[in-house]
This record gives sequence, structure tokens and C-alpha cells, in this order.
Amino acid sequence: MSILVLSQDALDYTEFLNKEADIYFATDAKQLNADQFSFDILLAQPDLAAQYLQLGGTASWIQSTWAGIEPLTKEEKAKSLLVTGVKEIFGPLIAQYVFAYLLDDVRDLGRALRAQTDKQWQPYTPETLQDRHLVILGTGSIGVEVAAVAKSFRMRVTGVSRSGQVKPGFDTVLPIDRLYHATSDADYFLIVLPGTDDTAGLINADVLATLPSTAMLLNVGRGVTLNEDALVTALQSKLLRKAVLDVFQTEPLPAESSLWDTPNTYITPHISAVSYPHEVAKIFLHNLDLYRAGESLDYLVDLDRGY
Amino acid sequence: MSILVLSQDALDYTEFLNKEADIYFATDAKQLNADQFSFDILLAQPDLAAQYLQLGGTASWIQSTWAGIEPLTKEEKAKSLLVTGVKEIFGPLIAQYVFAYLLDDVRDLGRALRAQTDKQWQPYTPETLQDRHLVILGTGSIGVEVAAVAKSFRMRVTGVSRSGQVKPGFDTVLPIDRLYHATSDADYFLIVLPGTDDTAGLINADVLATLPSTAMLLNVGRGVTLNEDALVTALQSKLLRKAVLDVFQTEPLPAESSLWDTPNTYITPHISAVSYPHEVAKIFLHNLDLYRAGESLDYLVDLDRGY
Repeated sequence: MSILVLSQDALDYTEFLNKEADIYFATDAKQLNADQFSFDILLAQPDLAAQYLQLGGTASWIQSTWAGIEPLTKEEKAKSLLVTGVKEIFGPLIAQYVFAYLLDDVRDLGRALRAQTDKQWQPYTPETLQDRHLVILGTGSIGVEVAAVAKSFRMRVTGVSRSGQVKPGFDTVLPIDRLYHATSDADYFLIVLPGTDDTAGLINADVLATLPSTAMLLNVGRGVTLNEDALVTALQSKLLRKAVLDVFQTEPLPAESSLWDTPNTYITPHISAVSYPHEVAKIFLHNLDLYRAGESLDYLVDLDRGY
Repeated sequence: MSILVLSQDALDYTEFLNKEADIYFATDAKQLNADQFSFDILLAQPDLAAQYLQLGGTASWIQSTWAGIEPLTKEEKAKSLLVTGVKEIFGPLIAQYVFAYLLDDVRDLGRALRAQTDKQWQPYTPETLQDRHLVILGTGSIGVEVAAVAKSFRMRVTGVSRSGQVKPGFDTVLPIDRLYHATSDADYFLIVLPGTDDTAGLINADVLATLPSTAMLLNVGRGVTLNEDALVTALQSKLLRKAVLDVFQTEPLPAESSLWDTPNTYITPHISAVSYPHEVAKIFLHNLDLYRAGESLDYLVDLDRGY
């Protein structure tokens, strides 16, 4: 069975996949020759996999290298294929991103650094995360991972999901129609939703208005979920204390976006979770064993549902 | 039974102790009148309690407001008294301090902030704490708390203690004579030792030399544990990658200390754990109930052992 690795980081995968015989590496589908559009298996960035299909390429199974597979949901040809994601490896990275910003929020590392620069010994009383209320919108594997870390910091953790189904690590999980019940006393509001038709524009001015003015919002899911204009207004009028954003309606975030210099707003360039090739390769090789054995693959994606 | 609250923050305690009848608040023992040196019970900073005893004061029980009780270990008169500490409340704060710096280390928040200031979208690949090796010297309640958080971040955690006794949350606990075995492949080396005769100068040039040059050292225990000259030399010669220090041989850290501008060194003014009066008061009131009932107190300190 022939394998195509199609990724901007394709060459980083060679060392992990060097035992495979019939394998080809490319960083763009346009690099392929006309006779190279009939691979059995793709290990691919979703956007490049979509490009490959649009150019007439065929495959039986696509293993995504990313968590977000939106480009494939828009590709009709993909819906007849097996598509698998990489669901377990981003949780730890996103938990680290989230707590880097939560801990900087309570500990104010910059204040200590400024005093050090002046060789000044200036004690201050930091805040604490203990007993603070973290609301996580999205209770998939990433939300569960963040909740576990939050509990180790002795926070109160409420999850909000479509079903409200109980998940490990959360003190409470509420269904989405009770979102306001959770946000109304949130200290931290974390959005980890996938980008789907259901979630687009979900966090609008009405939802933001339910947050206390002392709350901090973080979005590590997809930019489409959050109304950016409403967010800017809330921050400018101090109805919200702080925002940390890793995803945006348009990426890269355009230079003219007012988010760049909205007060108390922290912008990161979609790096909360990155795909380390050694981790993705490990998932792929395990799935490859399952595929060859004719067994059900891990992390199958439902393209209609969008995740 | 009469109670003296003796603390720089004495007035912050009034709201939590306003149900006690025979109670007096002072921020310094020198404020007391000559007839005010015979309280039954002290809720006090250890240094001010020692001052009170030196000035001829008497008491049956001293509840410390701090974790470190060194000033009382040096006070012969204290050894015939009951002394209790505040052992459970600093762990969560110190865990937050430690992970604020560990997460800033892997995520490099400053890099994202500089790019934002220039309105530049510049993705980079952060490091991860997952599978990194954290060595914690000291496996008391603070070490256990830090270990639990480290495990939630999926780190490998080795504890080192006098006995090497198994403790929850650690993958391994080694006795102190096998310290080198742990430090030799440490990514992060955290010191949470109390200041005692046994620990003074324990982390010297020889121990620092066992750490990989890629390691980062953190000291949140007591300054006397660490040879500061040896640390400066290790950092200047890049035998150690980074140091984060909250405690020092002399505090406040003198302006002439070379630590202030040693490369890759972060100085904080002994704020990793602060005593929140509401938490200390809660411990004190519980112990007061036990004391009045003639029962054994929580967190009794052995002044000869030093903790």
C-alpha cells in the first residue's frame, strides 16, 4: 500500500517513517507529477489533503496531522474516505498554553522582572488560582486534559457541552442551553470548540455580557466561534478584564485588525498546540497497523459533524 | 486564655478573630507595655515571636504564621513551648509559582508579546513539559503538591528526601545519598528544603556540576541551602541554563549581590508563598479548639529538627 506524506513539515517525518517501503514525501500537492495522484494512504495536513483531492488525487484513508479538519469537511470527495484525526496529543500542549497565561495572570511575572532590572527588592502579594472558577466550553479530550490540570491547581471547574454529559475531572458539566449559568460567575472562560456550523458565532455580544467584568477569556478552539467585534467592544468598555487569543476568524490575523492593540488582549499566532512529527507519526504508525490488519482505526472523524 | 497576635499583618487578622474575647494585636513586640508579656497563646511571625521571648515574654503555645520557623529554632526559650506551623497552605501557592516559571520557560510568552507589539504574525514551535524530568529536593507537603501538578502536566517526577520514603505523586523517591542519580538527567531541579543545620550549603558546586547544562534550577525553600557563589559561577560559565530564585542567603537580597544581573537568572522577593491571613486564621482557630479541648495540635513543629 502506497503512502503519501503531504505536509509543510514532510521532511521532519522521514526519520520516523523510514521503515515504510512504498512512501513518498511532499510539501505541496502541486509538487507531484501527474502519475502521483493515486496513493492508498495520506498522512497529510487537511488543507493540503483537500488540495490533493481537488487536483484529482485518490486515497482510501487520510490521516490528518492536525486536530482541526475543517478543510476536509468542505471537500465532498473526502466524505467517502476514511479520515482520522490526532485527538490525544494536543490536550497537554493546550493545557500548558492555558496555564502559562492563567499563572502569569495571578503571579504577574513581569512585575518581578521589572523590579529585578532595577535591583529593587519589592515584595507583593500574588493572587491565587485556588478556588477560582474555570469554565471550559467544550468537553472533548482537550477540555478534559485542561480540567485535570485545573483540579491539580485546586480550581473549581465547570464544563459546558452540547449534551451536558458527565466527563472526568469536571466538578460539573452543563448542557449548552445553560451556558449562562456557568459564565455568570466565571473567573476564567476557556473556549475549546471545534469550528463547525453549530459553533460559528456562538460566543457573541449576548454571551460576553453574561461574564463578570473581572473575567478573562481564552480562545484556543477556532476563531469562527467568537465574534471578534463584540469582543473588542467588551474589552474596550471594560466589561471584560482580559482576553488571550490563539485563533482568529482570519489567519494570519490581518495587520489592520483592531485586536492587535485592544487593551488587555494577548495575541498568539495559532501556536497553542503544534503537531510534533514524532507524536503524529506514532499515531499514524499505530493506525497503519490497524489498517493493514483490517481493524477499526483510532480517532475516526465524522466529516458531517466536523470533528 | 489570652491571645497575642504578633505580625506585620496583625490588623488583617482582626476580622477573622473577632469572636475571641481576650485578644491583643501588635505589629512588633516593642509596642507592648511592660505588663503585656504574659500571654498564654501567640499567633505570630517566628521572628517577632523570638523577639517577644527575648524581651522576657512567656507563652504556652506559639502558632507560627509562616512555614519557615528558623528564628524560633535559635531561641532556647522556645524549646519548652508548643510550636505549630502552617504546613498545608503553601503547597498550592508554591506549585503556582513553580509552574508559572516552567510554563514561561517552554512557552516563551515574551516572544509572542514582542511580535504582537509589532503586529507581526510569527508562529514558532513551543517546547513542552510533557516527559520532561522534574527533580524535587524535599518531599514534604509542598513537594507532594508540586509533584501532583507535574504529573497532571505528564512530567516525570523524582523526589529526593533524607529517607527516600515513597510519597504520593512521585514516580520515584530517592534517598539524599543518591541525589546525583536524580540530578544527572534533570531538566528542572526544584529545591524545597527547610533551612536547617543539615541542609545548609547542601547545594554546592559539586552538586551543581552534576546537573546537565540544559537544566533549570529553582529554589523556593531557604537561601541557606544553596551556595550562591557556586550558582553564579555555574550560570556565568553556562554549566546551568537558567535559575529562578525566591529565597536568598541574605534577605532582602543586597543591591551589591551579583545575582541581580547574572545571566538567565530570575529573582523574586520571597513571594513564592505568602501567608494569606484568612488561611492562617482558619488553621489557628482549628488548633485553638484542639488546644482548649486538651487535644493534640495540628502541624506541631520539632524545633530541634527544624521543621
